[in-house]
Amino acid sequence: MSDDSDPRQFRFELLSTDTSSDARRGRMTTLHGSVETPAFMPVGTQGTVKTLLPEEVRATGAQIILANTYHLMLRPGLETLVAAGGLHRFMGWEGPILTDSGGFQVFSLAENVRVRDNGVTFRSHIDGSHRELTPELAVGMQLGWGSDIVMALDHLVGLPADESTVRDATHRTDRWLTRCVDAFADLGGDARAALFGICQGGVDPELRRESAASIADTAVAGCAIGGLSVGEPKPVMAQMLEIVGKILPASKPRYLMGVGSPEDLWMGVARGVDLFDCVLPTRLARNGALFTPTGRINIKQRRFAELHEPLDAECDCAACARFSAAYLHHLFRSGEILGLRLASFHNLRFLASQVEAIRRAVEQNAFTSAHALFLTRYRPVGHAENA
Amino acid sequence: MSDDSDPRQFRFELLSTDTSSDARRGRMTTLHGSVETPAFMPVGTQGTVKTLLPEEVRATGAQIILANTYHLMLRPGLETLVAAGGLHRFMGWEGPILTDSGGFQVFSLAENVRVRDNGVTFRSHIDGSHRELTPELAVGMQLGWGSDIVMALDHLVGLPADESTVRDATHRTDRWLTRCVDAFADLGGDARAALFGICQGGVDPELRRESAASIADTAVAGCAIGGLSVGEPKPVMAQMLEIVGKILPASKPRYLMGVGSPEDLWMGVARGVDLFDCVLPTRLARNGALFTPTGRINIKQRRFAELHEPLDAECDCAACARFSAAYLHHLFRSGEILGLRLASFHNLRFLASQVEAIRRAVEQNAFTSAHALFLTRYRPVGHAENA
Repeated sequence: MSDDSDPRQFRFELLSTDTSSDARRGRMTTLHGSVETPAFMPVGTQGTVKTLLPEEVRATGAQIILANTYHLMLRPGLETLVAAGGLHRFMGWEGPILTDSGGFQVFSLAENVRVRDNGVTFRSHIDGSHRELTPELAVGMQLGWGSDIVMALDHLVGLPADESTVRDATHRTDRWLTRCVDAFADLGGDARAALFGICQGGVDPELRRESAASIADTAVAGCAIGGLSVGEPKPVMAQMLEIVGKILPASKPRYLMGVGSPEDLWMGVARGVDLFDCVLPTRLARNGALFTPTGRINIKQRRFAELHEPLDAECDCAACARFSAAYLHHLFRSGEILGLRLASFHNLRFLASQVEAIRRAVEQNAFTSAHALFLTRYRPVGHAENA
Repeated sequence: MSDDSDPRQFRFELLSTDTSSDARRGRMTTLHGSVETPAFMPVGTQGTVKTLLPEEVRATGAQIILANTYHLMLRPGLETLVAAGGLHRFMGWEGPILTDSGGFQVFSLAENVRVRDNGVTFRSHIDGSHRELTPELAVGMQLGWGSDIVMALDHLVGLPADESTVRDATHRTDRWLTRCVDAFADLGGDARAALFGICQGGVDPELRRESAASIADTAVAGCAIGGLSVGEPKPVMAQMLEIVGKILPASKPRYLMGVGSPEDLWMGVARGVDLFDCVLPTRLARNGALFTPTGRINIKQRRFAELHEPLDAECDCAACARFSAAYLHHLFRSGEILGLRLASFHNLRFLASQVEAIRRAVEQNAFTSAHALFLTRYRPVGHAENA
């Protein structure tokens, strides 16, 4: 480049670090605005965070959302999104958007999946049509509809899997990353977006180290950690984070994919994670499972039928500020959609308030005590140990 | 009463009338605010207008909502609503609420329905429990949870029915009205609410006349016309309205129950109706059927997939002002709840804008030409004739 100005729209600044843990406080800047980190990204799978309007998502405290390339490429498709003026305009979300590469859903939702070195072929779960995803297509589509953060295509294997299968997929992910970097450069991605690589390696410490080193050596703007929170024990996930945390460059944002329980946000930040996403808060909400400061409850239980006060008196969300637990209970018992909306709003607000508390704690170099305080109150579901 | 002040919270003023039709422009005042008439009342069956928050319902232009006594008495029940501080507070709607008497749903939803002169017994469609509804219970419950407009209990028969069955039910409705008036007075209803009687009589002109005369002779604050829009031809509905319109007192509001297509609003106002309610706009919306100035469309049709502009350029609703028809199409095709919300909002806004146009036309003594203009553009579904 002959011009002095930096063409990159993306920046990550590390604002402060906690001395008693690996927790970090940062700021990510994109073409569509900045994101204070650590941050949780609500998932808008099909171009909408389920049940909510964009301004409601924003009002929960969310700064950036995630959308799924696999879903968007099948419906409405790249052409429609381009004709609409891009994904931001189509769905009315003006803030940053991160899209995944499609890999995760191809391997979990699609049929007749065949992986070759060139890419992956599959049949759409919607209409059975034959489709293909390559590193170049994944990057091209994400840039095409205007994502702010583009994820490299990765090869995911279901666990448990034997070591050679995991090794094979991890090495393929690393090879695909090189092609994603090239495609991103060819399309002038830097001028409008950022490319993140994805560390794989299953629960094998050695493969995780290899994969993290490969990403550390690559000119990506950020580093994602994939293939975790897929059923492995929580201490194993924590161990993998500790292993890759030592290798990934401190100057780039770290994104733990698919993680979104309150206790896992704290656990991940303690190990240096800056970004999280998960369908958990909105999916749980639609089942009536709501986060509270002491743990998850199910609003459909009889005990809420006559609770004529907010479910969570500490919460400032639309549901808690204006409606009683008894009303939420009634809406769920009656199968009313408004219940799904209010619950989704509440759970997203709860996670946003967790990362707000986390950010304040890191700024004050008091993350570990804040984490301990959280754990004295919040009782996770199904895990005796979770730190 | 020894006090000079009028204890009644309810008033109806006739502001102007149209000279070329029976259209009227009025204002109804209740404890929870006033309603400009003609007005359409969205239905919040179970204590929520389906998919929408109270402020969204208000933003469509709705001034008053309807809730269903049958549903509320079964779930959450009178006790819960009283403990919550009334239906307004429970559901967060601060404007006027009209509740029906429960009669319509008992006869259409409940099981083991037995009508005696004292009232009606039935089994709940939710849990099979034995329940009872009498004129006194219907009035007492509606006053108990704080309805602004209380409907008298009526006996509805499915059509077609033989003349003696209709006559029997109509006379029972008239007898029950007397008991409702007494119960309303005993409970001091006038100080906080209004009681409306319901004219029945099926499609029998003579029975309609009798029933209307009976209501005209009774000390009710308003007159409802029930048992229409249940499958009879549109010209028959119009004829019944013309018959009872001559008998019902002009000084009291007239409420045509269960009517809510755009063309029927205009048709009813032309015959002197002031109030309407119907689940049609919200139910249609959830099926993707949306009102436009030229008629109903279904947003799921392929032709909307690439329409990157508002569905209805004349509409100022949240859906049309901010999203494209292509996005609505995508949401419905993808089964996303946000689509149901936006469609519900749009259809309610469309009906509210119809009654706004109607009110302006009556004020200008130009109802008939406005009605004609509406009919030149709007093509009703399944009716060649509809005026």
